[in-house]
Amino acid sequence: MTLTVVGSVGIDSVETPFGKQDDIVGGSAVYFSLAASLFTPVRVAANLGSDFPDEAWDPHRQRSADLSGLKVFPDQKTFRWTGKYTGDMAEAETLVTELNVLTEPPSVPDAWERGGMVFLANMGPDVQLDMLEKLQGAMTFADTMNLWIDIQQVALWKLIENLDGLILNDGEARQLTGEIHLGAAAETLMARGPKILVIKKGEHGAILFTPEFRCAVPAFPTEKVVDPTGAGDSFAGGFLGSLAQAGECSEQSLRRAMADGTVTASCAVEHFSTFGLANATDEILSERRRILLNYVQLEGNC
Amino acid sequence: MTLTVVGSVGIDSVETPFGKQDDIVGGSAVYFSLAASLFTPVRVAANLGSDFPDEAWDPHRQRSADLSGLKVFPDQKTFRWTGKYTGDMAEAETLVTELNVLTEPPSVPDAWERGGMVFLANMGPDVQLDMLEKLQGAMTFADTMNLWIDIQQVALWKLIENLDGLILNDGEARQLTGEIHLGAAAETLMARGPKILVIKKGEHGAILFTPEFRCAVPAFPTEKVVDPTGAGDSFAGGFLGSLAQAGECSEQSLRRAMADGTVTASCAVEHFSTFGLANATDEILSERRRILLNYVQLEGNC
Repeated sequence: MTLTVVGSVGIDSVETPFGKQDDIVGGSAVYFSLAASLFTPVRVAANLGSDFPDEAWDPHRQRSADLSGLKVFPDQKTFRWTGKYTGDMAEAETLVTELNVLTEPPSVPDAWERGGMVFLANMGPDVQLDMLEKLQGAMTFADTMNLWIDIQQVALWKLIENLDGLILNDGEARQLTGEIHLGAAAETLMARGPKILVIKKGEHGAILFTPEFRCAVPAFPTEKVVDPTGAGDSFAGGFLGSLAQAGECSEQSLRRAMADGTVTASCAVEHFSTFGLANATDEILSERRRILLNYVQLEGNC
Repeated sequence: MTLTVVGSVGIDSVETPFGKQDDIVGGSAVYFSLAASLFTPVRVAANLGSDFPDEAWDPHRQRSADLSGLKVFPDQKTFRWTGKYTGDMAEAETLVTELNVLTEPPSVPDAWERGGMVFLANMGPDVQLDMLEKLQGAMTFADTMNLWIDIQQVALWKLIENLDGLILNDGEARQLTGEIHLGAAAETLMARGPKILVIKKGEHGAILFTPEFRCAVPAFPTEKVVDPTGAGDSFAGGFLGSLAQAGECSEQSLRRAMADGTVTASCAVEHFSTFGLANATDEILSERRRILLNYVQLEGNC
């Protein structure tokens, strides 16, 4: 099944307790594409400026990504984000956001066949709705953020009503539904449309909710978390890459996708920027999947 | 293997987003004993005043608990705690603490045979060290809290050096070691002595660390969390009750104990006070264990 991502390309400056890096490659579409393309070829649609380094796309090309949806705005600047993580790094403090080319909506190449699996990374829900219509995904998933819950909640609910799957973090699920209990938040969200809901909890893993079953996965027990930037998009990329590779959303495929999202995200957070994802291999993912399966083993599991 | 708990008996007043209850039964030894005695008979040592209702011990007696270590101080008051949970109820705000009979150390009946499994619930580490010596447990576990990390850290480390197992929450593990990453915190703690370490993470479950393996378990997907008071002691009770019942600490028994601690704690948090634990049965625990095992199932797990 084809997998298409629409999202942002960014140039980040990030400080964590483990160091500080300026002007590094980032953006939701970049993390997602590198992660998902470990499992299946990905089509990427996003805006960028002429300041974004072309060689940053080499690892995507090596994984057969279709980059014809990248729209370069000459003489304009790429989206820039400056953030800082402290303490347990659960949440970034945003210091600077420069939207730059993100003020223009992304565009979808006419040549792209419609349908397949689509991921609408965090963008204004109005833009996501527009993309949803243009791409006509057979299975459409989206992410969001607190900003849109604050200022575009009506459009966001309209988007949610049209989604097959929603992938968001625990704070967002609580804010959007007003529910304290994640199970109750999940029920409220799924009652509005999505049949597949993933609530991401950072270092505490993620929970999958469907009408038929639930599945919890812990974060991979990595020895180091250097920079959590992009962890959520890397999880979504591994999760949907795995599903697109399977070509269906059976219980077995969804559970496996939770494991694949988890091990993929673990590669992302061990380094700044996309270095960890770019260097990930099938062998690394397989070994981490084996460790993860052992990690969650409870007596009587089998 | 005998299981002995030394801890507190309390009268609590608790407010959560789901209600407010005054003068209800609480205390670490009470929650632990009711939880552990679902698996194995427990011996309880704790101080209480003449204001503590005797009928509160009936469910313990029905589960064959040995209550000869309870020391009633006539005309004195039981330990009292008033607390409030807001938002996601991750942490209680303590409004009032009245130590009352807790200013006296607990005592161990001469008739008790030494050895077996011992749980030293949260108390001053100097008192825990004294109890450790008196009980001479073959396997001694303890809990602690931020207060002792702040004001008795030297004694606390001395205690830790003498423990077989330590059960504490993630915030405490980070505070005590100065490590951000839980894996690093675990290594620092285990380097000082304990071979078994459980880091509790509230609604995010718990992680078991041993020199040979690690095991993560999510919180049970309960439909309602009404009052998290005692959840940690109930987890510890289910965990150590399960281990004492098994009579050994093999990998299989430890993994099973993580599941047992989890399902036991889930019964505690669905009601105020000890109502949920008092009404728990083998059938309820078995059914929840089945749900939990399915909940953590990832493709390829077997």
